Amino acid sequence: MMNDKPASLSEFELIRRIRQQAGTAEHLILGIGDDCAIQQQQANQELLTSTDLLIEGIHFDLRWTSLEALGRKSVAVNLSDIAAMGGTPLSLFLAVACPAQLNSDQLQQFTQGFLSEAEKYSVVLAGGDTCRSTGPLMISVTVQGTVSKGRAIRRSGASPGDAIYVSGSLGDSALALQLLQQGESPPSQLADRHHRPQARVALGQQLAAQQLASAMLDISDGLLADLGHIAEESAVGAEIELSRLPLSNRFRAALEVDPQRLDLALTGGEDYELLFTSKVQDLSQHPELKPAVTRIGVITTEREINCRRPDADLYQCSRGGFDHFA
Amino acid sequence: MMNDKPASLSEFELIRRIRQQAGTAEHLILGIGDDCAIQQQQANQELLTSTDLLIEGIHFDLRWTSLEALGRKSVAVNLSDIAAMGGTPLSLFLAVACPAQLNSDQLQQFTQGFLSEAEKYSVVLAGGDTCRSTGPLMISVTVQGTVSKGRAIRRSGASPGDAIYVSGSLGDSALALQLLQQGESPPSQLADRHHRPQARVALGQQLAAQQLASAMLDISDGLLADLGHIAEESAVGAEIELSRLPLSNRFRAALEVDPQRLDLALTGGEDYELLFTSKVQDLSQHPELKPAVTRIGVITTEREINCRRPDADLYQCSRGGFDHFA
Repeated sequence: MMNDKPASLSEFELIRRIRQQAGTAEHLILGIGDDCAIQQQQANQELLTSTDLLIEGIHFDLRWTSLEALGRKSVAVNLSDIAAMGGTPLSLFLAVACPAQLNSDQLQQFTQGFLSEAEKYSVVLAGGDTCRSTGPLMISVTVQGTVSKGRAIRRSGASPGDAIYVSGSLGDSALALQLLQQGESPPSQLADRHHRPQARVALGQQLAAQQLASAMLDISDGLLADLGHIAEESAVGAEIELSRLPLSNRFRAALEVDPQRLDLALTGGEDYELLFTSKVQDLSQHPELKPAVTRIGVITTEREINCRRPDADLYQCSRGGFDHFA
Repeated sequence: MMNDKPASLSEFELIRRIRQQAGTAEHLILGIGDDCAIQQQQANQELLTSTDLLIEGIHFDLRWTSLEALGRKSVAVNLSDIAAMGGTPLSLFLAVACPAQLNSDQLQQFTQGFLSEAEKYSVVLAGGDTCRSTGPLMISVTVQGTVSKGRAIRRSGASPGDAIYVSGSLGDSALALQLLQQGESPPSQLADRHHRPQARVALGQQLAAQQLASAMLDISDGLLADLGHIAEESAVGAEIELSRLPLSNRFRAALEVDPQRLDLALTGGEDYELLFTSKVQDLSQHPELKPAVTRIGVITTEREINCRRPDADLYQCSRGGFDHFA
């Protein structure tokens, strides 16, 4: 174990330690320790790349997030972007600006969480940068992956009449955060949806391989905001049937206490489920899709997003999606 | 011009504006606006990737750095890592955590500087992320480039007897910073070396194409620290002849005022010149190498870095290289 004070941990020493733990991969010709990582390319594959920021006080709160879970989440939310294209994640690049009060034990916990999660998805840490932060802890992760030529699923492919599907269940992460912010302890399954999201990589790959999705993204800003992104990029609208929203038993129980919580499933965000459109009107014939997907609505011509209540009236949502810039 | 207050500039609006200005490139199949960028791959090329952090209060000071220059520098220091492998930069990914006091005019200046500099090197902004910062301005840039298979120049290839070369001149950037920190105004050529560094991309490509360099990196932490990285990765040592250090006329003039400033050329850092080793003992026969390179020493078997004074005694440096983590 490392118990030295943060001031004694130099940039080079930290990089040396991470480098020792980073592992290897067949496609990685040269990893951490030079000016650039060097990787093989394949002509029949296209390169996918995405960058995510995680800033203390904006995206996470160390009062209720462990450094280990934060390391895991930094990986999962980034891989979720590769999943959202139907791709295979391969390499991660990690940049961390670290406040002085974080000791090297905590840094080690973060690194362990990060590397364990990467290993779970067979992804290698191929490079990065570290320095002191004069303010909050700041994490920037870049992921690279591949997808067979022309098979990436974009946001722009939805057409009127396409069915709208979502994987897993919605709102659990936002409900857990709401409870944490109110000083309550959410049950562990709920807390895990917030602290330890899963990237739906295998599902995304299935949808791409079978060409089942016309448009797709992962839900980070909330169902309605993210459906809005598909609608905008595809120049279409959408209608959601509220009765069809996939909700966990725990979420349904919380909903009975406070019906307003339905908005957490619509706009809470950080679900990291896949939201996609499909020409196939009934995907229940595809049990290989895991987690199970639920049809929640239909793409429309009118360029607006509507939520239909069970009584057929339109539902007015009380809050917008999450804006990291607000 | 945009004069709205920062609070009115949403994350999506900022991304929309940057997207409009980001340009296109042949290799870029899909740029900003989806979960991932999509790029072509070529089987005869290897992929180079590097990530850099720039944190306010650590790497830059807005008291004397304009947002436009900061945008340019964010690009150049990152491309310098591709240059250091002998590669061709292609795509940039920009993550910015932005404090509330930065208005959208300033953000626009940063973006303009960033995109102008990228264009100068024919590099495209292919993706990124933005959010509010609860502390300082934080910038994370990831660059991707390519290099012909097996031609990347690593840090680990130096052998005893190899000549050590450096491009351009050393210490100008650190001298400019010293003057700024002392409240003086450095002359513009000196200030430009600090605020507007150039990535030595063409030089790196020449060295790779002609296989002239056995090991290479770019000087960001200071000559001695970075030479130490080559020495460590190559399991060798080095001896530098101080009389051979390439110094600008302005630097020499400042050196006459204070001879201690020699250490700025040895350890000041942020030169972004290429430091490389070569089997070729006299590169003066290669006038195509621009900026000109100067032979400054030799790789040795003993695993230590020595600086030889004109009187043949060893020079004791008064400061170490820059550690972004200290």
